[in-house]
Amino acid sequence: MVRSVVARCVKQVFRQSRGLHTKPLSHESSIAHLLDQGPKDSERVVVNGFIRSIRNQKQRSFASVGDGSSLEPLQALLTPQQSERLSNGTAVRLTGSWRQSPNPKVQSHELHVKEVDIIGYSDPATYPLQKKYHTPEYLRTMPHMRARLPFNSTLLRFRSDAIAAVTSMFSENGFTQIHTPIITSSDCEGAGEVFRIGASEKELGSEGDDGSFFKAAKYLTVSSQLHLEALAQSVGKVWTLSPTFRAEKSDTARHLSEFYMLEAEISFTQDMEDVMGLAEKAAQSIARNLDSAVSRVGKELLQSTIGEEEIRRRVGGMLQGFHRITYTEAIKLLQTSTHQFEYSPTWGHGLQAEHERWIAAQVGGKADISVPVFVTHYPRAIKPFYMLPTANTADGRETVDCFDLLVPEACEIAGGSTREHQLRPLIKSMQAKGMIPGPDPSDEDLGELRWYVDLRRWGSVPHGGFGLGFDRLLGYLAGVPNIREVVTFPRWVGRCEC
Amino acid sequence: MVRSVVARCVKQVFRQSRGLHTKPLSHESSIAHLLDQGPKDSERVVVNGFIRSIRNQKQRSFASVGDGSSLEPLQALLTPQQSERLSNGTAVRLTGSWRQSPNPKVQSHELHVKEVDIIGYSDPATYPLQKKYHTPEYLRTMPHMRARLPFNSTLLRFRSDAIAAVTSMFSENGFTQIHTPIITSSDCEGAGEVFRIGASEKELGSEGDDGSFFKAAKYLTVSSQLHLEALAQSVGKVWTLSPTFRAEKSDTARHLSEFYMLEAEISFTQDMEDVMGLAEKAAQSIARNLDSAVSRVGKELLQSTIGEEEIRRRVGGMLQGFHRITYTEAIKLLQTSTHQFEYSPTWGHGLQAEHERWIAAQVGGKADISVPVFVTHYPRAIKPFYMLPTANTADGRETVDCFDLLVPEACEIAGGSTREHQLRPLIKSMQAKGMIPGPDPSDEDLGELRWYVDLRRWGSVPHGGFGLGFDRLLGYLAGVPNIREVVTFPRWVGRCEC
Repeated sequence: MVRSVVARCVKQVFRQSRGLHTKPLSHESSIAHLLDQGPKDSERVVVNGFIRSIRNQKQRSFASVGDGSSLEPLQALLTPQQSERLSNGTAVRLTGSWRQSPNPKVQSHELHVKEVDIIGYSDPATYPLQKKYHTPEYLRTMPHMRARLPFNSTLLRFRSDAIAAVTSMFSENGFTQIHTPIITSSDCEGAGEVFRIGASEKELGSEGDDGSFFKAAKYLTVSSQLHLEALAQSVGKVWTLSPTFRAEKSDTARHLSEFYMLEAEISFTQDMEDVMGLAEKAAQSIARNLDSAVSRVGKELLQSTIGEEEIRRRVGGMLQGFHRITYTEAIKLLQTSTHQFEYSPTWGHGLQAEHERWIAAQVGGKADISVPVFVTHYPRAIKPFYMLPTANTADGRETVDCFDLLVPEACEIAGGSTREHQLRPLIKSMQAKGMIPGPDPSDEDLGELRWYVDLRRWGSVPHGGFGLGFDRLLGYLAGVPNIREVVTFPRWVGRCEC
Repeated sequence: MVRSVVARCVKQVFRQSRGLHTKPLSHESSIAHLLDQGPKDSERVVVNGFIRSIRNQKQRSFASVGDGSSLEPLQALLTPQQSERLSNGTAVRLTGSWRQSPNPKVQSHELHVKEVDIIGYSDPATYPLQKKYHTPEYLRTMPHMRARLPFNSTLLRFRSDAIAAVTSMFSENGFTQIHTPIITSSDCEGAGEVFRIGASEKELGSEGDDGSFFKAAKYLTVSSQLHLEALAQSVGKVWTLSPTFRAEKSDTARHLSEFYMLEAEISFTQDMEDVMGLAEKAAQSIARNLDSAVSRVGKELLQSTIGEEEIRRRVGGMLQGFHRITYTEAIKLLQTSTHQFEYSPTWGHGLQAEHERWIAAQVGGKADISVPVFVTHYPRAIKPFYMLPTANTADGRETVDCFDLLVPEACEIAGGSTREHQLRPLIKSMQAKGMIPGPDPSDEDLGELRWYVDLRRWGSVPHGGFGLGFDRLLGYLAGVPNIREVVTFPRWVGRCEC
């Protein structure tokens, strides 16, 4: 009974609901497709897009139209009447015919417009994206608008292609993609530069009392590594591409408060070469995609930023086998260099950006390519507690089986290590770093890292992994000098627009 | 000069660095691959894995071994000596020969073990995952351990496959994948149930004074929609699969504080059918992947949860064209039903979970499949400000062009709408909702939504989109009754383990 009433109603609804639809603006092929392949019917071409610029002559007007699918605009020919109410930014639907251009050097074909539908007006008096050059600083004040610029939409497509490429690479190699948590209880690197979260204003000030949302202080993740280690014990080879946060007050071209990190972890290995090889493969999958002959984005980037030659250096170098050099050797090289460093390179201290730049350029730089450089085996004292100590060190100086990956300008774009997978040595390492008291800590002493220590109690296996700064890598390959242009809505100290 | 020193050092390093490597535990093929395809050399099979269970007899021992690649374990035959120090959870490397099983109903082949390497011990006295049944509640207290259970690792693989499937679908359809921001300035739905962030304890209590990290109060995103709308004006068709947050104190099987939302937005359409069709396609891409003949995960899920018949109902229904019914019709159906509802269904009020369940079952339920149901055109008063009012309503009651997607048990798994894309109507709608004062608001009045209103100023185009609860969809298709099992490290009110 109910069924039949339902059936009747559903039928009625179908009829009614079709009637409710407003006439859709049809989905025509993209401008990129039109420029590449030409139209199906050259007498009736329909294009949706935005006016990028318009030039009015007495007899006719020339409009450049883009829809975000290509760096190159469509050239459209209009009558002065048709172009009357058009200005930069106006959204239009153009119907016309596809004709050979009299000036094929600019574009082989142009659209002879028969009909203009104005879909959205743009007030020329206030439109903030004029044809003139805008500084990156000016554009950063309006991230919601700058994505309409041809180069910025190329960067959007580049990121999208890069995600797809690296997803395929991991999938083909038997990795499980993980959604690691954003809200976490612990601070992986012990850095303290974390964002805290709370459900209300009142709560945010309190130190995790029972009235708080999670009954304890919680933070935004600074790395998915610890959680990936747990899951690598489950399915063996895991990866994630996940938002990551630092509350660092670094106001540089290489730092953001919110950024994407590509992290991977593999079980049943204690050979750091396995981990470095994987990091290499991940970076190369993105460079190869960019380099591929069919890559529209690749061609567009070559035209648009720091110059074709420099981008070829970077992409070409990325596709080579990466250099490997130990930290100790790197320090020696730096010390024998005639370059005047602000900070003198000293064994036992971290590498400064100036040191990393020099190494990337001198060790990785060839005549026509820049090969990324792995610097390995840093001193144990300056690296986190979870890294595996190097088994045999020739000179008695304690190092860990870890690496940083360096490239010119962007400096460090990845870091990784094999992990201390045994219970006692891990606890000793935590003690040595002053993270926990006493030689035989209780569960309470272990605090928020208790679960991480647990992973070493029952069937722990040798494993290792890396984290790659996704935005830094994209910025480097695209030749964008500041990482704030690679991210659509960048957040850094004092700045969080939209 | 520097070059040649560098070249020499790099050479030395290569030699040295090879020497530093410890002997790697080699990467052998997964147990899933071995069970499916058999070994290359049946006389020398090497397997890394964990003991799931072990049964000791006088003459020999039988071990079930898993590595997370399959629900089904490998059966291994050992001598009592070999199995002496093995217990549940022990990590082992087994070398042996691949032999036909005397009991092929259980498994066609078994591993006759020649050599056992214990990689990681497991203390049987404390190992928390015994062979006996553990309640979901117990397992939720240890998310870092439960992923080692065969069913939980199947869920990990299912999620990974689902991400890959939906990524392909969008990529093939010309969509650009976006990394939308997590830290945001505005609260999209005006719900107020948001998490606030701050860089330090002190700051978190203050109302965005100039001393704070971002110079204003910031929140964790509740939806990527507003940002996607901006980017849809750039590249036309966009999507994201992004973490999303609600500080709701809902302690139910369908709510999490942190969850993944699949959101998409398309420009140049005002036909809601385009948006619903896309939501349908996204959900179906995941169901089809699960249903495919080659899907290991699909087969495993059929064996493991609410029963094969119910999963087939769900997957089969998902692959059909979804039902469409208006809210007004849904209310009529609910009112004529003989079912006793706790809340009486009334036009103008939201649908309660009990109403959604009834509609999903009665409208979508067939003899052998459950077809998802779109409920469309809700009253304007109960929906957010950005939804497009329905153009022609027969009965004069104001509705918006929106939809919710309902399925049994999980209730609402997606929602979407076309958007108000015109400046004046949008501002009027914000006023009607009490979000801004006065008929002609200043930039200051618009507050954190100023940039969103800006999108309607210069070349705004009709557009629409949807958000799909990724975890809810996965839970529904996998037949997992509680969403807390679908997410590896679930967070909800009072709970944030690890």
